Amino acid sequence: MSILPCLAFAVTPTTFPDAAASDPAKLGWMVGSPPPPERTVRFADGSYFQFPAMRWSVSNFRQLMPTVNVSRGLGEPVALESALRQDIDALSFTPLGAQQSMTWEQSLAATYTDGIVVLHRGKLVYERYFGVLGPQGQHAAMSVTKSVVGTLGATLVAEGQIDDNKRVVEYVPELAGSAFGNATVRQVLDMTTGLKFSEDYADPKADVWAHGRAGSPLPFAKDYTGPRSYFEYLQTVQPQGEHGAAFAYKTVNTDVLGWIIARATGRNVAQLLSERIWSRLGAEQDGYFTVDSIGTPFAGGGLNTGLRDLARFGEMLRNDGRFNGQQIVPKAVIDDIRRGGDKQAFAKAGYDLLKGWSYRSMWWVTDKEGGAFMARGVYGQRIYVDPKAELVIVRYASHPVAANAANDPVTLPAFEALARYLSR
Amino acid sequence: MSILPCLAFAVTPTTFPDAAASDPAKLGWMVGSPPPPERTVRFADGSYFQFPAMRWSVSNFRQLMPTVNVSRGLGEPVALESALRQDIDALSFTPLGAQQSMTWEQSLAATYTDGIVVLHRGKLVYERYFGVLGPQGQHAAMSVTKSVVGTLGATLVAEGQIDDNKRVVEYVPELAGSAFGNATVRQVLDMTTGLKFSEDYADPKADVWAHGRAGSPLPFAKDYTGPRSYFEYLQTVQPQGEHGAAFAYKTVNTDVLGWIIARATGRNVAQLLSERIWSRLGAEQDGYFTVDSIGTPFAGGGLNTGLRDLARFGEMLRNDGRFNGQQIVPKAVIDDIRRGGDKQAFAKAGYDLLKGWSYRSMWWVTDKEGGAFMARGVYGQRIYVDPKAELVIVRYASHPVAANAANDPVTLPAFEALARYLSR
Repeated sequence: MSILPCLAFAVTPTTFPDAAASDPAKLGWMVGSPPPPERTVRFADGSYFQFPAMRWSVSNFRQLMPTVNVSRGLGEPVALESALRQDIDALSFTPLGAQQSMTWEQSLAATYTDGIVVLHRGKLVYERYFGVLGPQGQHAAMSVTKSVVGTLGATLVAEGQIDDNKRVVEYVPELAGSAFGNATVRQVLDMTTGLKFSEDYADPKADVWAHGRAGSPLPFAKDYTGPRSYFEYLQTVQPQGEHGAAFAYKTVNTDVLGWIIARATGRNVAQLLSERIWSRLGAEQDGYFTVDSIGTPFAGGGLNTGLRDLARFGEMLRNDGRFNGQQIVPKAVIDDIRRGGDKQAFAKAGYDLLKGWSYRSMWWVTDKEGGAFMARGVYGQRIYVDPKAELVIVRYASHPVAANAANDPVTLPAFEALARYLSR
Repeated sequence: MSILPCLAFAVTPTTFPDAAASDPAKLGWMVGSPPPPERTVRFADGSYFQFPAMRWSVSNFRQLMPTVNVSRGLGEPVALESALRQDIDALSFTPLGAQQSMTWEQSLAATYTDGIVVLHRGKLVYERYFGVLGPQGQHAAMSVTKSVVGTLGATLVAEGQIDDNKRVVEYVPELAGSAFGNATVRQVLDMTTGLKFSEDYADPKADVWAHGRAGSPLPFAKDYTGPRSYFEYLQTVQPQGEHGAAFAYKTVNTDVLGWIIARATGRNVAQLLSERIWSRLGAEQDGYFTVDSIGTPFAGGGLNTGLRDLARFGEMLRNDGRFNGQQIVPKAVIDDIRRGGDKQAFAKAGYDLLKGWSYRSMWWVTDKEGGAFMARGVYGQRIYVDPKAELVIVRYASHPVAANAANDPVTLPAFEALARYLSR
């Protein structure tokens, strides 16, 4: 988004008010004309990403910064068939490492959920909204964006428009001098590039800060001499280690994929997502991407959508790419994701809670039988597609801690418990 | 929007490339990844509002600055019934002050039209797009926004939620020390307030600059001590002359109306426009408002919409406020606008081309029999509602000259010729 969320994150305290106490609707952020100063969220001072103000911001990014539309087209939305169930709230499970069980309903507050939709066998069985999010609203997908962009990239590979064995430099000559130049497109798609790029938010010298600064839509300081767009930043990323050896989750890979897609198709990721997917899903709402100062959509994390539309996207994937009477994504793409990526490469990244998982085309592939896969965004964003359980779960959230390790101990067993429960 | 368009306008040359030579699609603004530097439009440097770059910008404001959604709701769009006519292009008329006639088709280029839709007896008889605007896109309405906000204000008056005889200070106590405090709401609605506020773009000391600076979403300079939002700015406007004596077109009146509406309803104009009108029109697309740094929609000129949706809005007005099976705006509001405002007060403003017209509830009311009325925005934006001719014309444009006096000699006779032609 910009450097500011990272700055804000670095100084956030380690204990936080709970979901009820930090409810952005109850706190009244940006309510009033004008809102009271202590409830005013401004982009330029960085306050917008401090908890709990960020609980308002994640549903209102377009009010803070420039964005580009992802049009749903002009046609009729296609309704999700409703078969709501009242029994899910009472479902009980035990969080990882916990002594006591928790209900599904309790898990929503524990994960600071802003909205959650569950589709089972294609029908809407569960839907809840909290705080300032409703069915008519668009929430930040954060790094769920990566999986959406990865799906576009894998589609172009399946169609032969992009050759994932080719070197990145063949699509983007400007990256010749960077770490990306001699990586293959597949290594970018699977994030096994060897990059000198730290995403450690707690480190004020982490590269992710410079990345955000380059991508900021705000004017650059007079004495600023660094890169002034995402594209300029990517050219500065240096190698570290060898490509293909280990999975290393780095946002810049997705920005490079966005660049490759733009060069291969003449469309940026916002345009392509609209043309290829959003306008064919029967979506209810347009989505949008945040953009940098030259209009580049932030492929690594800038997507915002309606929650039900994200569910339509997930359901399309669950149905082998077919939805709304059309083959939207080739079945081969879904098959490939479900088979997963290089598990040994993944293991080297050391995710304690994700043992046996892998990463493929910017999707997190679980160790579950049947190839359940997941999109994961900081602060708790998720798409969970479980083909075997005929289940799709999409969640938007505003957890005070960015890292998903903070909510996985609740999220992972909750989703698995629901899959088991609905499959009984 | 901000001070920047005004700055840009002040330095624009007096001759310009024609519509074809300045076509933003042909010029390729913001095409490429990245676009070439000479075709890159940036917000922060003000280049976005220099002609011909502004021909791209007016269809892409959300890519340049923060905005707030005007939701169409989640339902099905209601199609406009199509009865396209091929004969309109050849319609001939004589521009004011011209020796030679011009065809309707020629008038589109002469006015740098980006898109135009004509509804006759409720059917779509004409629709054209140029440059970077299409049916699926949102264009700046500029001061057409005022008429939309005026319609909301007049609706609240008709419903008794706002008393237009009351003083502004009764709704917005903060305006007590400004020129607005002792004006009536009606004087604000009809722009007969006596204000020390110059909108002369050619004058670098004009107040409109300070207004734009206060409303800019960009960070304020360290040494800046002025107002930091539209609301703060409005409190600084001082009186000049007496209220009620003369029509004087000043954008700040609409910003004050927006504030009054917010206080009366608890909704800002973006929320209220969505709830009251946009979500009931069967609109195809969401609209949006640009916002200042504290999220205030720019009531005086910040609306952007799809062109067909603006046509739906116009058609609703033509039908006495009834559209899509619902009474959306009270008939009394339309009746009142059609009766017009104070013609003597209007005459004092000295519009040579608009003799006999008046201004009512932020609509320009013509001298035509039957009370045809018009919304007018700089650079050529228009809604023309002619109840007698059963005609609605909506036009989005990017004329190089802001003042409508530059396109009225073509626009006014063109619209009247079409009204006569279709009424034969």
